[in-house]
Amino acid sequence: MDTPIDFYYDYSSPYGYLAAEQIEAVAARHGAAVAWRPVLLGAVFKVTGARPLTEAPLKGTYSAADFRRSAAFYGVPYSPPARFPISTIAAARATLWARAEAPERYKALALAFFRAYFRDGRALDEPDVVAAVAAENGFDAVQMMAAISSDAIKAALKQEVDEAIARGVFGSPYFFVGNEPFWGADRLPMLEAWIARGGWAY
Amino acid sequence: MDTPIDFYYDYSSPYGYLAAEQIEAVAARHGAAVAWRPVLLGAVFKVTGARPLTEAPLKGTYSAADFRRSAAFYGVPYSPPARFPISTIAAARATLWARAEAPERYKALALAFFRAYFRDGRALDEPDVVAAVAAENGFDAVQMMAAISSDAIKAALKQEVDEAIARGVFGSPYFFVGNEPFWGADRLPMLEAWIARGGWAY
Repeated sequence: MDTPIDFYYDYSSPYGYLAAEQIEAVAARHGAAVAWRPVLLGAVFKVTGARPLTEAPLKGTYSAADFRRSAAFYGVPYSPPARFPISTIAAARATLWARAEAPERYKALALAFFRAYFRDGRALDEPDVVAAVAAENGFDAVQMMAAISSDAIKAALKQEVDEAIARGVFGSPYFFVGNEPFWGADRLPMLEAWIARGGWAY
Repeated sequence: MDTPIDFYYDYSSPYGYLAAEQIEAVAARHGAAVAWRPVLLGAVFKVTGARPLTEAPLKGTYSAADFRRSAAFYGVPYSPPARFPISTIAAARATLWARAEAPERYKALALAFFRAYFRDGRALDEPDVVAAVAAENGFDAVQMMAAISSDAIKAALKQEVDEAIARGVFGSPYFFVGNEPFWGADRLPMLEAWIARGGWAY
């Protein structure tokens, strides 16, 4: 069965990163196909009125610790970035370009973006860093830099974000299995059960 | 090993209810002892500026569905209350009284409060309902009603809530294993791993 999974995330989301390290293995166990869909949480939060987790009183301190604890629990290397959160518009646009350019390789680039920021402490908000990571992953950085400044890519990302909000996406990571929504890396066990059982009545 | 678990919750919290149905089994698997600590989320939210989940745009719709879906996933009967959220001050005070009165039986009463509200659709904000549930569980309802109006119990609950906020509790359910905090029913697998392994570096 080829269950489609939509995986929405922001490159500045630690739980998005933890999900990115796991979702393909979950999908592979059930013959499901994942579409990686970077969005911009800043645009989403304008609609919902939410704040980044780490800026909320009490919750902020807990969350910073839970990122590190969860990464260790899942066995995922994680190094808290010095600057956080950051703008991820360049990386998101680059991902849309790569998805159109090389559908069979864009997920490797997407994961490399996450790792550049959350493992290697690289400044993913800087277009030069985005270009360098793209080059390291076999993409044409010059072509990519031109593309991510184009009106076409800007419009494509805006459309992706608008569609995500219209679907109800309010955080990162956020998944759809068909039309069934799942919010958070901690919903992956339930998401997997949902695929395995073909859902359940509730 | 007698690991102490503090279980903070509000009786009006669906995820608190889901946790209440599971935490004793988790603890029993590891010889851990749980202290049930009802608090008032309203008082907590005054400090954090948070809103009830169900009142947040987008997140509200998702959460209402996720309560039902999660209950089905965990095999816990759940019937969305007609009035939600409610004031749980009477039930919280009654629990503190019962804990002092009958330490070996107060958890059964606490679980009965949750079930009255989330299974049976009873108006747990009404002191009469709190008294009826107490009587059904072998407590002296007249004595309890007098106690929950006493200054001593009012002060005791206020102190519990203040201490919870001082410890960093910002939601329901919220656990401490020793001094290690865990927020959310979806952290129970990690909490259990934490007890089993004696924690891990992060």
